[in-house]
Amino acid sequence: MPGKLLVIGGAESHDAGDDEILERFVLLAGGSDAHLVVIATASESPGEREQEYAEVLHRLGAQRVTALRLASREDANGEPAVAVIERASGVFFTGGDQLRITTVLGGTKVDKALHARLAEGMILAGTSAGAAMMSSTMILGGSLATVSTGSVRTGPGMEFLPGVLIDMHFAERGRLNRLLSAIAMFPHELGLGIDENTAILVDGDSFEVLGRGTVTVIDAGQARDIQCPTAGFTDELGGPIALYGAQLHVLPAGHWFDLTERAPKRKAEEDHAY
Amino acid sequence: MPGKLLVIGGAESHDAGDDEILERFVLLAGGSDAHLVVIATASESPGEREQEYAEVLHRLGAQRVTALRLASREDANGEPAVAVIERASGVFFTGGDQLRITTVLGGTKVDKALHARLAEGMILAGTSAGAAMMSSTMILGGSLATVSTGSVRTGPGMEFLPGVLIDMHFAERGRLNRLLSAIAMFPHELGLGIDENTAILVDGDSFEVLGRGTVTVIDAGQARDIQCPTAGFTDELGGPIALYGAQLHVLPAGHWFDLTERAPKRKAEEDHAY
Repeated sequence: MPGKLLVIGGAESHDAGDDEILERFVLLAGGSDAHLVVIATASESPGEREQEYAEVLHRLGAQRVTALRLASREDANGEPAVAVIERASGVFFTGGDQLRITTVLGGTKVDKALHARLAEGMILAGTSAGAAMMSSTMILGGSLATVSTGSVRTGPGMEFLPGVLIDMHFAERGRLNRLLSAIAMFPHELGLGIDENTAILVDGDSFEVLGRGTVTVIDAGQARDIQCPTAGFTDELGGPIALYGAQLHVLPAGHWFDLTERAPKRKAEEDHAY
Repeated sequence: MPGKLLVIGGAESHDAGDDEILERFVLLAGGSDAHLVVIATASESPGEREQEYAEVLHRLGAQRVTALRLASREDANGEPAVAVIERASGVFFTGGDQLRITTVLGGTKVDKALHARLAEGMILAGTSAGAAMMSSTMILGGSLATVSTGSVRTGPGMEFLPGVLIDMHFAERGRLNRLLSAIAMFPHELGLGIDENTAILVDGDSFEVLGRGTVTVIDAGQARDIQCPTAGFTDELGGPIALYGAQLHVLPAGHWFDLTERAPKRKAEEDHAY
């Protein structure tokens, strides 16, 4: 993945002077030369979201912003849509319902074109539902219930960033328990809880934290013991989970994390030219 | 502390057939021989709370339940109140505002009598605010904001259980970030997040988990690095905190934790006669 991923925990501020995350997106996509595409398929009001982000991205210096309306799989398999993606230097997915993204885009020509452009160096950004869908496994929903097999539902995401499970609005909606529930059942995945107004910028096998909040990393890979009763999948409370010895990291802006080593690091060694 | 502590994460159910935590309290205090005392000082409606708990505890087999109304420090320094505590085999603190407990009881004769009775083998129970006040340091309040120096306020608790920081309603109110904020600043304390309808029963230097939810244990004692900016104590958002390598454990009912070793264990070795 020579391209970059910008995974935003939701509610990224659009106010002038407080929009460093979207500003970084525009810069990494080429600044005034960027070809930006906004996809609001997750939203129930795609027109409003398209207009909102087009205005902000213009204000932040992008001259070419295209709203790509994908309301159906027919749209997402259409040559016009593919042509828009093939010209893009940056694509932004808005929030809404992540299942709308997979059901409309999954396996379509636009899906393939996005992966191809990412391999060629494009930056792909998403907020909220647009963040949740980034990984190979995404959280579909869950409850504030206790840590249990029944309190979270997962499904395959769009597979731009393998090996992690992303939850967003993390602090604001108190989502530790649903992320812990998922990570206990699937400890090979790394759990990332991203606060609002906060993002990770994935570059190769590392990410940098941007924004006002923190990213909570939960790593159950080295957990000493995990007990997940398989009964209760149909019950909201499900079977309570025991998890001994997960690692937890809290990372604010300017901190880096190595996804291969599963360890925080202070700074990237390499230069980040943009 | 030869006595036992029962620390409940709030909203313990009073429904018949679903009140195992309070049932355990009655049993440990002596069952039908128990002398129980309910202290509703934390509540703004102490009369209602007293009546509610008296009814439940009677139903669970306790024959002697005394509501001890402590509305002022004068009450809490009075000989009649001290005499009630001295006869008690079990004392229960209701929920409400934990600062009401410290301001009315802290340093009074009732406070001293509670510690003395605990040393003699009494069981002391508390739910919600009555749980928060148990330790040497208690959480006064906080926000759902990000992990930061400004997002939690702590103060001295009633010092029945040293070495831990207790947060309650943990899953239900999404309180990871305020507990993490406190633990990052004070990593010598062990963080305990107790869900509703869930409790820890502390016996010596171990506790057992009871109830329907889980207890989340956060141990930053071995954290590799912690950065807590001291600026921002007056700001809700405060300075964002970095925390590398805390340990996290999730414990459902029937699991034990060794407070000295700071490690989960499957079962207590000793018999628990009651």
